[in-house]
Parts: sequence; C-alpha cells; structure tokens
Amino acid sequence: MTKPILLFSGGLDSTTLLWQLKPNVKALIFNYGQRHVTEIDHASHLASKAGVEFEIADVRGISHLLAKGSQTGFQEVPEGHYAAENMKTTVVPNRNMIMLAIAAGWAISTEAKSVYTAVHAGDHTIYPDCRPDFIQALGSAIHLGNWEHVKLIAPFVNSSKADIVKAGSYLKVPYELTWSCYKGKLLHCGKCGTCVERKEAFKLAGVEDPTQYEA
Amino acid sequence: MTKPILLFSGGLDSTTLLWQLKPNVKALIFNYGQRHVTEIDHASHLASKAGVEFEIADVRGISHLLAKGSQTGFQEVPEGHYAAENMKTTVVPNRNMIMLAIAAGWAISTEAKSVYTAVHAGDHTIYPDCRPDFIQALGSAIHLGNWEHVKLIAPFVNSSKADIVKAGSYLKVPYELTWSCYKGKLLHCGKCGTCVERKEAFKLAGVEDPTQYEA
Repeated sequence: MTKPILLFSGGLDSTTLLWQLKPNVKALIFNYGQRHVTEIDHASHLASKAGVEFEIADVRGISHLLAKGSQTGFQEVPEGHYAAENMKTTVVPNRNMIMLAIAAGWAISTEAKSVYTAVHAGDHTIYPDCRPDFIQALGSAIHLGNWEHVKLIAPFVNSSKADIVKAGSYLKVPYELTWSCYKGKLLHCGKCGTCVERKEAFKLAGVEDPTQYEA
Repeated sequence: MTKPILLFSGGLDSTTLLWQLKPNVKALIFNYGQRHVTEIDHASHLASKAGVEFEIADVRGISHLLAKGSQTGFQEVPEGHYAAENMKTTVVPNRNMIMLAIAAGWAISTEAKSVYTAVHAGDHTIYPDCRPDFIQALGSAIHLGNWEHVKLIAPFVNSSKADIVKAGSYLKVPYELTWSCYKGKLLHCGKCGTCVERKEAFKLAGVEDPTQYEA
C-alpha cells in the first residue's frame, strides 16, 4: 500500500508526527516564499534523516495573491506571545486549506489513503484553520470531491504544544534540528511568536530546550 | 466594496458567468502547466475585453504532484463523449479544491466577500468536485477556516451546458473567443471530450456555434 502523506514544515509539531509515523509516511514540504526559507532546508534535512521520501510543493507563483500575511515578507514580523491579537498579521490567508488541498491531490495521484497534519490546540486562538471543526469540514469536502477515498487525520488537534514535545522526547526527536522562527536568520531569534511559543513548550513539558537562540 | 472573485478559464461556462457579473468582478486564471496553455491566452484576452481586473495563479510548481490527469500532458487526451468512463483520465486530482482554496485566499487578502465558480450539472458524472454537495462542504470549510467571511457561489451548479449557452447568447457573450479544447493546437480539435460537449451545448441550446473546428 502506498504510504500516507504528512504536511511537513520541520517545526516541533510536524517533526514529532514524522517521528511517530516514520518510516511509513511521505513528507510534503511547502515553499510559499516564506521569509524563513531556512525552514525548507531544515525540513528537507529532517526528512532525509528520518529516511522518508519527500517532495517540495513550490507555490511561490501564488504568493502575490496571499500578500496579507507577514510570513511572506511584506510586513514586519511581530514580537511577543503567539496568542496575542497582533499575531494575526502572521496569518497567510487560507493557508492550511491550500496546503491540505494540494496534499490530497498528491495523495490521490500516488494512491495514498490518508493525509496527516500536525495542527494542534495551541493554535486555535489565532488560526481558525487549526481547529477540529475546520479539519472535519475539509475532510468531508475531500471525501465528496473525489472518487478516491482520502482521509484527513490530525492526531494533535486537541493536544498542546507541551504535550507534543513531551511525546516527542520519548521518541528521541532531534529537536535541535527543527526550525520554528519566523525571522529566517541563522539562529532562532527567541522573540517572535513562534520562538516564544517554542521556549514555553519545552518549559511546560519539562524537557530540556536544545535550541540555540540569538543572544 | 472589493469586487468578488471568479475562477476563470476562458471556456464557455466561466465566460458566460463573467459576462453576467462584469464589471463588478475580478478574474483568477490558473496556469497549472496544462497541455492547452493557449487557454490562458484566451482567458486573459477575454478578461481584458470584459474590462475586469485579472490575475494569474501560477501553480506549475505543484504539477509534478498531480501528474495523474491527462490535462498536464503526461497521458494521451482521449476522444469521444465527455461523460464516458475513459474521460476520467482527464481528471486532475482535487483540482477544484486547490483552485477554490487559492481563490478564497486571494479573496481574503483583498477583502472580497465571495468567490464564484462556473461548475455545472453536465460535469457531475465525471467530476465529483462539480457537485452541489462538494461546493457546500467546501464553502463550509472556507467559512470555518478563516476569520473573514467569504461565500462560495456556484450559480450554474444545477444548470446544463446548453442552459448556460442559451443564457449567454442573450448577453452576447463572444463565444468565438472562448476556448474549450484539451489538445492545445491552433484550432479546436472537435473530437476530444470538451469539444464534443461544446458542439452539443450549442446544438441543444439552438444557438449558432461560432467555433472554427479542425477539418
């Protein structure tokens, strides 16, 4: 049977899920012209290390249409806690639907039976497309829109980021190789929303944070 | 208020809808590496003629992931009636969801309130993603996945292609400028699924077919 597909960014959450599913999974990495393009190098490296097949979906040809979010470089990246109102500027409009729609297309063309996403409960405040009801509605649309049956699976949809890190530490996920920062410099900035959230997750999980942050 | 968005291919159906909605609409044209790339030239020309703003979404960077369908040039284009079993090879996996997801993203980033698609009843046999229940499920996912409210509207979802041509003839849609053929030559081939369907629609509508077909 063809291996299922995992939407993979090389961050804490999808890397943990990759380690849970490997080697029976293929990884799909997106290049949407993100400011933090180093994310793609980290993701490719991690997929190789996990020994799984991966593909890059290059959607830079649509980034001019989605220019509202700060992840594509048009706005300043805000600092502070991720759940705060100002973090909404980091939202790329309809991003998860676009990525999951493409992943489902790849699943169908390779006869894979499921698509995994590592959306988690910590993102619910800021990203409506990480919530269970969205995942369920999109899963139903994928089912109705194709002859083939592809299931959309989000195992972390009710877990916190700390839960995920705790689970990953048992699996010996190489968190030092993962990338979260939106700023796209050489080291994690330690100040943007995802960096603050990353630090907090390790702290709450009681797991040592192996990340090297900027001074 | 920002103008709504129409998924626009330059074929009979979406051109009729463009003529119904113009000038209060923006057109979104897709380049997915289709064999019939001439479709894009026809679509751009028609959007200009209609006097509406248009953008091209270049998704060629994902076409290697969707290589199952014959529209991207990997398989022979079948001849004969569109509703037949062999036409399923023209299906690009999950195509409508991918295009509508991107259109919804563009809608949000430009504060548009709705996305129009010209899917119609004649395609229900072959393309499940042209059916009312799919449109409804995807509309609900768009609603749940974003803070902004974007409506998905498919006015022809229960109309036949002949109904559409009949409506378009009253609006004086310049059908001679539209393009349907999957083969991507200089003239419509007259034999592939969409050409057969095109001829039939004019005939059933009792509207003169202005298309120049290959001998």
